[in-house]
Amino acid sequence: MVKKSNEAPPDVPSRGDWRHYEPVKLSPILTHALEAFYEHGFHGTTVRDIARRVGVTVPALYYHHENKEAVLVALLETATNDVIWRADAAAGEGGDDPEARLANVVEAVVLHMTHRVRLAALDSELRYLQPDNRRHYAATRKKLETLLTEIIEDGVDRGVFAVTLPAETARALLGMCQAIAKWYHDGGPLRPEEIAGRYVDIALTTVGVRGPASRTGLGHPGGASPVG
Amino acid sequence: MVKKSNEAPPDVPSRGDWRHYEPVKLSPILTHALEAFYEHGFHGTTVRDIARRVGVTVPALYYHHENKEAVLVALLETATNDVIWRADAAAGEGGDDPEARLANVVEAVVLHMTHRVRLAALDSELRYLQPDNRRHYAATRKKLETLLTEIIEDGVDRGVFAVTLPAETARALLGMCQAIAKWYHDGGPLRPEEIAGRYVDIALTTVGVRGPASRTGLGHPGGASPVG
Repeated sequence: MVKKSNEAPPDVPSRGDWRHYEPVKLSPILTHALEAFYEHGFHGTTVRDIARRVGVTVPALYYHHENKEAVLVALLETATNDVIWRADAAAGEGGDDPEARLANVVEAVVLHMTHRVRLAALDSELRYLQPDNRRHYAATRKKLETLLTEIIEDGVDRGVFAVTLPAETARALLGMCQAIAKWYHDGGPLRPEEIAGRYVDIALTTVGVRGPASRTGLGHPGGASPVG
Repeated sequence: MVKKSNEAPPDVPSRGDWRHYEPVKLSPILTHALEAFYEHGFHGTTVRDIARRVGVTVPALYYHHENKEAVLVALLETATNDVIWRADAAAGEGGDDPEARLANVVEAVVLHMTHRVRLAALDSELRYLQPDNRRHYAATRKKLETLLTEIIEDGVDRGVFAVTLPAETARALLGMCQAIAKWYHDGGPLRPEEIAGRYVDIALTTVGVRGPASRTGLGHPGGASPVG
């Protein structure tokens, strides 16, 4: 079970509509660090680089964050909190319907990967964290995988989804969504909402909700004659 | 169309069984650079670090590679050649059968992502390349996406697959496979072949080959009564 907390996480001032995105609210240090990490990677950015972008001294930066890794951790915390409350809210809005819950969660994750692409791209820096921090984030990210696995298992139990490997399917679907941060950029041909719509469609096919019969009017695979 | 060349790419001495993996053959410089990039990232590694690992001087290293980016490019070239010839061979082995072709290509990509996880993980460094190099690799990787898209379109044309968005599905499936490099490590609980088997299963469900009826004996989604 994904445990829901009633306390708003520190970095997310309001938990409104999970589909609605405002520019992310970060301190000046985190804002500039995020840009620097996005452009040059965590390892390609020095504390001095960040301080220079912010316009503060290095000691001033250390006053707020213990070291560069602590800056990354603060950003990852923001990213994780953001995607998790949205995914939880999205699942909740789906009520008792596994298809709606799955569709909403995939939509929420894709909207996060696109609207928050700079934060989402930090994901690839995770493996450079110290073991303790890495474990913490692995556990937090696991919540998302667990949420999706439970939705899929529920759909299978009810005979709505046809999936033999719910946990692997959940992980694969998340991987599919997370890979978006590798190619998505603001100003690309597709808007976040369009990408989300397409990935929801693919996810529903993946769990077997949308089979040949329901979409194209064809019979089962073997029954149709070659067209092309 | 993916153009097949009869010339073996420079870094792949023999093109045997696409399922068979030997330890990757790299020069000492590339071997040590790969380990360094895997541990600390491209930006976290200096040319001096690589030279020290190899046991050569920095000028000696520059004799072989123009700069650090050229080292990364050589490794990416190896990775890309490896996955592309295997995927092509895998598709070829599937003959004229879209299901076998898709299953083989997904298997080939997952085997690459696991057996060659260090090379595969370089993928996240792509966005730090200079524009020219980045464009070159984007084009090469596109070949894989094109191969998969064509297989899916062929399956749809023949009424074997039920997919409304072949190109997006191909990209999503590749994203799903590429995300494996983020969590896979040698010595984990699942062997590459087992992971590949599971992802093939998920991919076939994604294109609608394995629907509820074909696997569980249940009727269509709406027809089954809740079990859980």
